[in-house]
Order: sequence, then structure tokens, then C-alpha cells
Amino acid sequence: MGAVKARRMPRAVREQQMLDAAVRIFGQRGYTAASMDEIAELAGVSKPLVYLYLNSKEDLFTACIRREARALTEAVRAGVRPDLSADGQLWTGLRAFFTHTARNADAWAVLHLQARTHGERFAAEVTAMREEIVAFVTQLITAAARDVHRDPHLSEGEAAGLAEALVGAAESLADWAGTTEGVTAKQAAATLMNFAWAGLGDLMTGRPWSPPREPETEPVAQAG
Amino acid sequence: MGAVKARRMPRAVREQQMLDAAVRIFGQRGYTAASMDEIAELAGVSKPLVYLYLNSKEDLFTACIRREARALTEAVRAGVRPDLSADGQLWTGLRAFFTHTARNADAWAVLHLQARTHGERFAAEVTAMREEIVAFVTQLITAAARDVHRDPHLSEGEAAGLAEALVGAAESLADWAGTTEGVTAKQAAATLMNFAWAGLGDLMTGRPWSPPREPETEPVAQAG
Repeated sequence: MGAVKARRMPRAVREQQMLDAAVRIFGQRGYTAASMDEIAELAGVSKPLVYLYLNSKEDLFTACIRREARALTEAVRAGVRPDLSADGQLWTGLRAFFTHTARNADAWAVLHLQARTHGERFAAEVTAMREEIVAFVTQLITAAARDVHRDPHLSEGEAAGLAEALVGAAESLADWAGTTEGVTAKQAAATLMNFAWAGLGDLMTGRPWSPPREPETEPVAQAG
Repeated sequence: MGAVKARRMPRAVREQQMLDAAVRIFGQRGYTAASMDEIAELAGVSKPLVYLYLNSKEDLFTACIRREARALTEAVRAGVRPDLSADGQLWTGLRAFFTHTARNADAWAVLHLQARTHGERFAAEVTAMREEIVAFVTQLITAAARDVHRDPHLSEGEAAGLAEALVGAAESLADWAGTTEGVTAKQAAATLMNFAWAGLGDLMTGRPWSPPREPETEPVAQAG
């Protein structure tokens, strides 16, 4: 069994290297234009080995989507600081989201652009991740409402709607930040907090939302 | 020339019938599963005539995307009532958006799901429409900020970011309203106004946004 384990370790490591290379090529070239030759070369392995391990271009792409969806979901969950107030939790969660998508631009392109653009099978993978994030944000919003009122008047349906709005806005802003010169993850998060927390009405009358005073540490995703 | 014109009219009408049928089939079956036979049958014409007029399944789908993108953009523009205050304009625009997407569920499925899921060529068509809507909303937000302050402190970049957030939230909520039992266009618009205008912070302390008092007329898209 020891020998088997010793042989299996390198496979897991090599697979991650193949996925690293694949995310980069899929994200930068797009799914259709990405070539398995280029992915194998970037991973430093032979093309037959990529097929042996990941089976096909479709399966390799699916593996990329799954890995990056989990990484993003974990980064957001790890970023939220449950010791903070409701707006502090939202702020730390959004910071984690925009930091992760900015640092992993190829992975974000795979998840939000490529996976949606090349057939229902891949799109379904991303839908599952999105539903998990919406459910998580719905919980955050419900908990925030409960914090403020002992007897919350925010219905479950309303909280779900607000979560959909927040997630849709965050996706849109991540694309915008990724394609607009000079927009940082922190600015994108602040724009969304102004929009979502303070509201346009407050913003326009000169009452923007202010970040809570806290040590300025970038949220870091926990290693799986 | 009179005879030519008389012959051309039925073609324009028939093309619209083909597009009506195609939007319905593409929206309900999905692009891949949609059959040209079924589209021709629903349109009440022969399949060769569909090919003669629209050339191919790809071109027919592109024609559907373009027509429905223009219809949606026009519905939103026509819905905004420039005589109202900033929040009233936003409210009427959002009402028009959610009313149009609810009444044209197949068209919304074509634009927001199918067109994005079946290749970069179709996705690019939708991106062009989205950019037009974002630019329009950026103008609305900038004008609203100018109304409130004589000397606006809202930068162009910040207004563009807020517009991206609003459009992303609206897209997400239109999907949600379309798939959630009992959520009306008006409720979806109200959820987004609470989110975007009043802000979650105000909402949680029991200060939701209230619609302006106005005659309760559903915004109606102007015929092109």
C-alpha cells in the first residue's frame, strides 16, 4: 500500500498542474480556441498524459470549472468575519469576492464567461455554484435583519430577492473591475457597498457608507 | 415599383412570424434542441422558406437576438418618465424592464440564457445591447446626482460602476422573478429599488423606499 500511495501522490500534483495550465489557457484563449497541445506544454507534460488523467477537453474544462467554483466559494466563506456587524460581514465577504476574482482573473473568465458560453452542460456547473452563493448571502441578509430587529419583518422571499440582486451586482462589477483600468478590488467592493448598503438615495445626498474601522488585512482564502 | 413593394410587404410580415415562432422555440427548448421543423410549423410556413428568408439556424438565432435586444432596450427607454424625480425615473425604468421581461419570458431566455450559452458570436450580440443599457443607466445616475448637488461629486467612473451594479442586479432578479412562483414584475422592481435606492442599511432599520405617488399605469413599450 505504501508503494501505491507513493505513486498516487505525483498524479494528484500533476493533475493540479494540468488544471493550473488549463485554467490559464481556457481563460485567456477561450474554450473553443484553447488547444490541448498548449495546455500540455504549459503544464510540462505530454498531451497523452493529459488525456490519460483528464480524459477529454470537455472533462478537463469541467474539472477546471469545479475546482475554481469551489475555490471562489471557499474564499468568500473564509472572508466573511462573523465577529463583525452585518455591514462589516457584507463588506468582508465582498472584499474577499473581489480580491479573489481580481487575483484569479483567468479563473473568473472560466467561471463567468467561458463556462456560460459553451453549452448547457458547463453552464449547469456554474449554476450550482451560484445557487450555493445566493443561499449563503440569503442567510447573511436574514441574520443581519434578525440582528437589527428582534422580530424580523424581512420575509424569506424578500431576503432571497435581495441576495439575487447582490450576487448579480457583484458578478457584473467583477467583470467591470477586470476590464476597467485602475479599478481595484477594494474600490469595486466599496462601490457595491455604497450601492447595496447605503443605497443610491443616501449616496446622492452625500451620505455614503463608510467601512468599519478594522485592521487593513486582505482576506485570504483558506487552503482546502 | 408598386408591384415590388406589394410583394415585399408579405415577406416582412412573414419574417416577423418566423421570428415570433423562433423566439418561442429557442426560449423554451434551448438553442441546441430547437428544430427548424418545429419553428417552420409554428410559423405556419415551409422549412425551405425559413431557410430562404433567414439563411441558417445560426442566422435565424442572431436575428432573434437582435430583434429582442432592440425591443427590450426600447421598452426600458420608453418606460423611464423624464418628468419624474431621479428615484421616480429609476422606478419607472425598472418597472418597464421587469414588465417587459415577464411578458416576454421566451425572449428573455433567448437574450440572457441561450445567447450567452452557445458561442462567442451570439454572446457578442448581447454584450452590445448590455453596453447600451449600462451607458443609458450611467446617464440616469449622473443626471440624478446633478439634480441633487449643483456641483456633483459623483465621478464618471463611480457612476459607471453603480450602473454596472444596477444592471447586474436587474438581470439576476429578472431570472429570479421568472423562476419563482408568485413574484410579479412590480415586486421585483420594488425589491431592486429597496436594494438600490434605499439601501440594505435603511431597509434593515425599517426605512424602505416608497414608490412616488403616480397613476398606476404599467409602462408600455412603444412600437418600433
